[in-house]
Amino acid sequence: MKHLVTMSTLSTEEIIAILDEAERFKKGKRWKVGEQTFIANLFFEPSTRTRFSFEAAEKKLGLDILNVDGASSSIQKGESLYDTVKTLESIGVEAVVIRHPEDRYFDELIGRVQVSILNAGDGCGHHPTQCLLDLMTIREEFGSFNGLTVSIIGDIRHSRVARSDAEVLTRLGATVLFSGPEKFRDDTNPYGTYVSINEAIEMSDVVMLLRIQHERHSEKWTADQYLEQYGLTKEREKMMKDHAIIMHPAPVNRGVEIDGDLVECSRSRIFKQMENGVFVRMAVIKHAIESKAQGGEKKYVHSI
Amino acid sequence: MKHLVTMSTLSTEEIIAILDEAERFKKGKRWKVGEQTFIANLFFEPSTRTRFSFEAAEKKLGLDILNVDGASSSIQKGESLYDTVKTLESIGVEAVVIRHPEDRYFDELIGRVQVSILNAGDGCGHHPTQCLLDLMTIREEFGSFNGLTVSIIGDIRHSRVARSDAEVLTRLGATVLFSGPEKFRDDTNPYGTYVSINEAIEMSDVVMLLRIQHERHSEKWTADQYLEQYGLTKEREKMMKDHAIIMHPAPVNRGVEIDGDLVECSRSRIFKQMENGVFVRMAVIKHAIESKAQGGEKKYVHSI
Amino acid sequence: MKHLVTMSTLSTEEIIAILDEAERFKKGKRWKVGEQTFIANLFFEPSTRTRFSFEAAEKKLGLDILNVDGASSSIQKGESLYDTVKTLESIGVEAVVIRHPEDRYFDELIGRVQVSILNAGDGCGHHPTQCLLDLMTIREEFGSFNGLTVSIIGDIRHSRVARSDAEVLTRLGATVLFSGPEKFRDDTNPYGTYVSINEAIEMSDVVMLLRIQHERHSEKWTADQYLEQYGLTKEREKMMKDHAIIMHPAPVNRGVEIDGDLVECSRSRIFKQMENGVFVRMAVIKHAIESKAQGGEKKYVHSI
Repeated sequence: MKHLVTMSTLSTEEIIAILDEAERFKKGKRWKVGEQTFIANLFFEPSTRTRFSFEAAEKKLGLDILNVDGASSSIQKGESLYDTVKTLESIGVEAVVIRHPEDRYFDELIGRVQVSILNAGDGCGHHPTQCLLDLMTIREEFGSFNGLTVSIIGDIRHSRVARSDAEVLTRLGATVLFSGPEKFRDDTNPYGTYVSINEAIEMSDVVMLLRIQHERHSEKWTADQYLEQYGLTKEREKMMKDHAIIMHPAPVNRGVEIDGDLVECSRSRIFKQMENGVFVRMAVIKHAIESKAQGGEKKYVHSI
Repeated sequence: MKHLVTMSTLSTEEIIAILDEAERFKKGKRWKVGEQTFIANLFFEPSTRTRFSFEAAEKKLGLDILNVDGASSSIQKGESLYDTVKTLESIGVEAVVIRHPEDRYFDELIGRVQVSILNAGDGCGHHPTQCLLDLMTIREEFGSFNGLTVSIIGDIRHSRVARSDAEVLTRLGATVLFSGPEKFRDDTNPYGTYVSINEAIEMSDVVMLLRIQHERHSEKWTADQYLEQYGLTKEREKMMKDHAIIMHPAPVNRGVEIDGDLVECSRSRIFKQMENGVFVRMAVIKHAIESKAQGGEKKYVHSI
Repeated sequence: MKHLVTMSTLSTEEIIAILDEAERFKKGKRWKVGEQTFIANLFFEPSTRTRFSFEAAEKKLGLDILNVDGASSSIQKGESLYDTVKTLESIGVEAVVIRHPEDRYFDELIGRVQVSILNAGDGCGHHPTQCLLDLMTIREEFGSFNGLTVSIIGDIRHSRVARSDAEVLTRLGATVLFSGPEKFRDDTNPYGTYVSINEAIEMSDVVMLLRIQHERHSEKWTADQYLEQYGLTKEREKMMKDHAIIMHPAPVNRGVEIDGDLVECSRSRIFKQMENGVFVRMAVIKHAIESKAQGGEKKYVHSI
């Protein structure tokens, strides 16, 4: 794995290997790069948790970091993403973490640059490290994915998480349910079955709520109305299976997707997801650097 | 001391202990964290000296730093300060330095988060490390605070410095005088006596000028008029006691609060204040980290 | 060399010494500061390559870095550049890298501050490290400068590169040709002879294209027209001498100054220039720190 741009380019074995490595890091494993190694974080959209989770992971691995803020870089002068990444490569950077508003921005990079591209979110497309931290959190809870029911609730259509998680969870043996407003259905995503909100809540081992963009819900519902119709209210939480857990990619709109009091309830793994995010990113970066060290351009590679 | 949010939560013994530690750092003491330790700087207002003074202090202590710029973070997406700080905590951060435009922003954090909160300025409220560096600079000059007269001149009402410094200086045995335009009087601050600008200058061992916000003075005075009526002119400097010193929290409006030529005169300690800022911040961070290491949630604690 | 603000303050011996040091770094020489040493990057204009090239160089030398973004600093509060730099000096910074939109911004600093000033671009004025990396790239190719013909093509008038490079290349024994639109002629620059675009291409060992600012060309030419009249088309590339190389300070406007397909052709040294930039900046910073360590204020110094 030299690049990580979408989950579908990872084999099941690679996914398991990354999760295993992340768990070892969580248990205290230390691993630092031997040589001085540069990584760049190139964020073209605001982000707190992904951005700083990556940066913490990089520092734990002993990397040297260049933080390139899209807004104050030469992109403003009309430079293409390709030329920016080539510049970072010329400067000596080994890997670039990129968040970009455009779907599949990475297609203009893969195969044309030597640096590793680690996707931290592309448009409404993919967010593979978010998917990996979701997987880590679920496996930590249930030991495996086989036979689990996971409901993904909310704006399925515009969610990077719904796309990545549903495909991979299905591949790993889980059953995925979708729920949410009619207008947020995504008929291009074949990896889940649509059910009512109450069915989703009652049947699931994992209730995963998606963030609603303010600009998308305000037209049709107030926050209260959304919560009542499609969100996790206190009443619905009582309908959950005894062992079932709550997840959310965050940032949470308290009182919209979920009752504010449930964000830190005993079922919630929301802050644990963020904690795990650092460890999966450590694993991903380590694999990318090691793969790069082993040899040249292995596009969407299979040797972890 | 786990958190440092206002000076009034520090005992006199704690203040002295911090000043002593800061002096040891200034004399060359070295102390670095043993384990990799993360600190975040979370600035929601522009700042040069406080922001970089903290960052220099953190680097001298060997900390790993996450610089979270309020403008490009998820706060833009409507996330609460509490959720942002919880996120940083989940990522593994031990302490967060915060500057925020809202008075007492920290009330929603203290007691609800595990990280240390170090206040780098809240609205028109508090700025404890500025107060500590003022104290360090005064003690360095006079050896103690007992019997000193300190005048604080300018916009008393909107100044974080006036609030913190006057209370603490009084507590430590100094006499505080206030001076400045009538409209900047602060009748809620009982720790100083209002006198005329010339009385303040003549009676003081320390003449501390406050920054005037452009938007506040422009309506009533030009820069020249302000300097003439309420500022430190060259004529007034001659009226100062022989040993008296000039202080200012900076950034200075040259020619408004103070004649530009006096900023670097032999009486001025303005750049020395900035120098000392790094050392008091080293001391504060060290105490916070050590207190946190010793045990759990010790709110506004007394063991330094 | 304590400061580096323009190339004309460097003797030929100093230039050669910097280039030699940069080559040693490129070949793998390691040198790190012994003591903890702070450097600040103070950028008032957007920049990717210069900004991150400096930062990579600083990290390779083991420096501690403060990145001061002009937009979010106290400059917004009306603080002068001098006061900002004095503040950084008080905080303990040893050198400041500055990019500023104003020509000769450094005149208000040199002789008044103790920190080293390293100019990363002033207005339409100077950009000495860009010049040094151009020199390094040319010398790497041809071994020396004596007898070479270098054409500088494009917006001569507004280019920091044209000003610095033409003077120094002439001093080092090269012949400089200028070419480009009539309105971009610079009659204050005596170090080059104006020729037609085709003459420049045919006669040169080095074809150096300058970036055209969008706002300047749009009024008179479309991108295609500019390329056809004054740019390096595929046809013109075939007219170049066999061994001749292509350079550009970047960011490149593909299809304006140069046909997009030529940016990475075998003659192009454009990304090599960026690579070399890190090494010349390492050399410059090392010399500045060492000169500062050796003694006080040596303005525009000669001991490298």
